[in-house]
Amino acid sequence: MKALVFDVFGTLVDWHTGVRQAGELAGRSVGSERDWSQFALDWRAGYGPAMAAVNDGRASWQTIDGIHRAILDGLLAGYGLETLTEADKQELNKVWHRLPAWPDVGAGLDLLRRNHLLAPLSNGNVSLLIGLARTNGWRWDCVLSSELAGKYKPDPSVYRTAARLLDLNSAEIMMVAAHVGDLRAAAATGMATGWIHRPLEFGPVAPPSKFHEVSQMIDADLVAPDLTTLSRKLADFNKGNSAGT
Amino acid sequence: MKALVFDVFGTLVDWHTGVRQAGELAGRSVGSERDWSQFALDWRAGYGPAMAAVNDGRASWQTIDGIHRAILDGLLAGYGLETLTEADKQELNKVWHRLPAWPDVGAGLDLLRRNHLLAPLSNGNVSLLIGLARTNGWRWDCVLSSELAGKYKPDPSVYRTAARLLDLNSAEIMMVAAHVGDLRAAAATGMATGWIHRPLEFGPVAPPSKFHEVSQMIDADLVAPDLTTLSRKLADFNKGNSAGT
Repeated sequence: MKALVFDVFGTLVDWHTGVRQAGELAGRSVGSERDWSQFALDWRAGYGPAMAAVNDGRASWQTIDGIHRAILDGLLAGYGLETLTEADKQELNKVWHRLPAWPDVGAGLDLLRRNHLLAPLSNGNVSLLIGLARTNGWRWDCVLSSELAGKYKPDPSVYRTAARLLDLNSAEIMMVAAHVGDLRAAAATGMATGWIHRPLEFGPVAPPSKFHEVSQMIDADLVAPDLTTLSRKLADFNKGNSAGT
Repeated sequence: MKALVFDVFGTLVDWHTGVRQAGELAGRSVGSERDWSQFALDWRAGYGPAMAAVNDGRASWQTIDGIHRAILDGLLAGYGLETLTEADKQELNKVWHRLPAWPDVGAGLDLLRRNHLLAPLSNGNVSLLIGLARTNGWRWDCVLSSELAGKYKPDPSVYRTAARLLDLNSAEIMMVAAHVGDLRAAAATGMATGWIHRPLEFGPVAPPSKFHEVSQMIDADLVAPDLTTLSRKLADFNKGNSAGT
């Protein structure tokens, strides 16, 4: 592999914790007590349908920031947040720019960057991805986003745009994600695939899935419980690939 | 200013020295002795007309890598390089991915990045800009390139695409370049401008221009002999701007 591209929400950052805490904070500022874990789940749930509407032409292009804001506006009344000022709503919407990384990500990316180009390949818009990189101290070689293709993953144009901009064959790129749909779509354009297990993506679910059980059902070139392990497996994978050619 | 975007060839990297040395090395490998400084100038000279042909529709889009290769092919015979293998020609063409930075650039970018988003905004394609950043250890927040607009600077769409992807108003962005045409085009889209003096861009010309003489003729918001000085002047400029509003 020459480059690794990364799904971000869920794979690199813990959106559930970040959004739950932001909701709690916003609620406290206006005296609203609610289930902020459910608030995070509801906000995230609106995201897939809105992207699908863009991809199949029912809606024109808008960024994830715009999609997030439209979903948030629909949730405000139900969560007692309707009295937030416009500035506070904008600030709350930007929580997606400053989500916390999973604990293995910083060290994992540093390891992987020694021998590979690294970029996010996310449905988050470019400015959002810049915010997450600044928040978490990540060092990307460039920022790749669905915004550059004008379509959302899993549309094949997103993966093809990434390969074109990196000037690499798709087979020289590995898509890394916690979501099999993303990996399947990447593989369909010729990319290699690396699956990362994120059992706590949707918050405290009981019981969380176990890596050694779930990973056996995943169809990916590599499976790993964290980025550090992925880095080790990738070194073997790269050796195996060059030995095989 | 919230973000600074940078011209790269000439402004951040010393293309003349890098290309001259690569020509010399290639020449030595096939026993050709020529004026490699002139080789660098000739290679660079073909670049403007090829980009203009793309911008005014006489040629369809191609990357700078493609443009560089076409120009190189036209120079090979005149410089005794026609016996290079295809692999060697490809390698020589990639010299534009590994040019050396001017001495002030590394420290200057580190200083500027403390308080601003930083990105190249270059006619170089994304993969070329990744190569230059890796070669010189630069840390960009994202990579912006004419490739993302499908037009070359000074087409206004290039500057507007950059502002859109950064999700900033043009007035929140400063274009930094050694070339007044680039700054003029950026200013026309509403960007602020910072001019850097690079008297040795075209190699050893006698006598090189003096900053205190030339800078007075430059129409830019800031003028500086190097990025470290720009960083100091920018701090004052930002203070002045916020005091004025």
